[in-house]
Amino acid sequence: MVIDCHGHYTTVSKEAQAFRDAQVAARADARPPVISDDQIRESVQPQLAFQAARGTDVTIFSPRASSMGHHAGDARANQEWARICNDLIHRVCTLFPRQFVGVCQLPQSVDGSAADCIGELERCVNELGFIGCNLNPDPSGGHWTAPPLTDRAWYPLYEKLVELDVPAMVHVSASCNPNFHATGAHYLNADTTAFMQFLTGDLFKDFPRLRFVIPHGGGAVPYHWGRYRGLAQDMKRPRLVDLIRDNIFFDTCVYHYPGIELLMKVVPIDNIVFGSEMVGAVRGIDPETGNYFDDTKRYIDSIPSMSTTDRTKIFELNARKVYPRINNVLSRQ
Amino acid sequence: MVIDCHGHYTTVSKEAQAFRDAQVAARADARPPVISDDQIRESVQPQLAFQAARGTDVTIFSPRASSMGHHAGDARANQEWARICNDLIHRVCTLFPRQFVGVCQLPQSVDGSAADCIGELERCVNELGFIGCNLNPDPSGGHWTAPPLTDRAWYPLYEKLVELDVPAMVHVSASCNPNFHATGAHYLNADTTAFMQFLTGDLFKDFPRLRFVIPHGGGAVPYHWGRYRGLAQDMKRPRLVDLIRDNIFFDTCVYHYPGIELLMKVVPIDNIVFGSEMVGAVRGIDPETGNYFDDTKRYIDSIPSMSTTDRTKIFELNARKVYPRINNVLSRQ
Repeated sequence: MVIDCHGHYTTVSKEAQAFRDAQVAARADARPPVISDDQIRESVQPQLAFQAARGTDVTIFSPRASSMGHHAGDARANQEWARICNDLIHRVCTLFPRQFVGVCQLPQSVDGSAADCIGELERCVNELGFIGCNLNPDPSGGHWTAPPLTDRAWYPLYEKLVELDVPAMVHVSASCNPNFHATGAHYLNADTTAFMQFLTGDLFKDFPRLRFVIPHGGGAVPYHWGRYRGLAQDMKRPRLVDLIRDNIFFDTCVYHYPGIELLMKVVPIDNIVFGSEMVGAVRGIDPETGNYFDDTKRYIDSIPSMSTTDRTKIFELNARKVYPRINNVLSRQ
Repeated sequence: MVIDCHGHYTTVSKEAQAFRDAQVAARADARPPVISDDQIRESVQPQLAFQAARGTDVTIFSPRASSMGHHAGDARANQEWARICNDLIHRVCTLFPRQFVGVCQLPQSVDGSAADCIGELERCVNELGFIGCNLNPDPSGGHWTAPPLTDRAWYPLYEKLVELDVPAMVHVSASCNPNFHATGAHYLNADTTAFMQFLTGDLFKDFPRLRFVIPHGGGAVPYHWGRYRGLAQDMKRPRLVDLIRDNIFFDTCVYHYPGIELLMKVVPIDNIVFGSEMVGAVRGIDPETGNYFDDTKRYIDSIPSMSTTDRTKIFELNARKVYPRINNVLSRQ
């Protein structure tokens, strides 16, 4: 089985974003979107086609990251928006129970607190069968005004994540800072930033069972693995392999063979989960290979030295470990 | 000849920082530091020893990056501080003219403008024989309030850089945002951010002879080279090799072999300049190799397939191309 741990509902019907725009603008015509089952079926045809063509079985699916827009609405508006987005994910998962498993958007906001997120997280996990959440380390959208992820302000959420036994993917939303292109800078910077926060803090002493997926191949981290090993050593911090062992996992959303090759060389196989970010940041075909840039399974399949055991870990077993609730979902099918 | 394009004066005598602290605190006892030639000779013994041990000939040397602190002082204070730091670099270069060539700190500040930097840049290049500058894309120290590097607000500085035929290394200073560890997040994020700004803008149409060095191996960029190629294609921007050809160069401050190997695989050799950041961000010895993490020459020397031509480009010729004024300095010796 091949589990893609990183898919966003980027093809959601346009009624959803139209509502969000009206809601943020506080327009009188802001009404929750009415979207039919047929529209939902139609909207995920690209994902289904890519799954079939690339040989992936199931996608861990969450609302479009760039549309979360935690910087755009207030706490109440973002509660409503998260609920709508998560309900749409639930409808996709209900219509295609073999192909999609849900991960939720959290109702974060610039002035909000971690406690704001707990109700929606519980609803999604306990009532909708979701298996994780996306946690935005920068609800300000590029101004980075929230406390670091190791700050105790986040602890109420972490307590709930551990209680529910679900992981968080560290994932920012759009950038409203003109310095940061969303998918070309803000996303990767957030991944790098979060890792260094974890390296310098003692979060996993307090929460030994808390698990984070750092997407986009871990931002800059694997490329600079020597730098981080050296920084950890200089700072008398744990070795990286010990820091990450049970708590930090990188996905494989790296869109060329040399990058995937490096990831596999430096990061322990047990800490890598397959992901493609499909349909996502990069949508074209690489003229150098004739294949889609984000067909990351192809790069992994091309690594000559990988054992079947390692391959099975990356494609399936690690995801089952990081997202244990997926086992219940898959066994029901 | 081996030219290390990335060295900071991290071992500067403590009197310098003591002055800066007093100056920023507006203390009455803030007096420019008095540092003897013997103190300067003593302070750079670590760099000289590393040069000798590692087989590098000359270091392109600039003030300590984390001490620039553009967020800490106002425009006037930062003018004075830049002048003091640059004068210390000049004294190092005068005492050891074969081993060091100067690159200057710019007197940027949160509310300052590009025009503030021109006088000090001209002084350093025309009077002190410096061959480049460090440009901070985020003088706010982690709040990212300045305009992107492609904004016209920076153009007066770029006009002067082109007129003087000197490059800028994109280099932030310390972070005053608790989210960003300086050397473990802020530095790399800035490199990634700057590259994406260049990719989305048309800066090099306006300044075809403007040259930037993106340090720390280009942040996350080479690891995500496929992502950037794909983004450029989706956005109908130039191919990366064309974007960077005459204008963007990555140094080799990547502290493990797999990272250097990836850099050499994906970035054209003509766009890579040797750098070690010595004495800098990571100071320890890698227990896996027994060598200093930042002995980056060793990684490059270990690449089996590299031709002598390519090696000479990385270690010498590319630096002479990016920093052409180094040719005058070296020929005078």
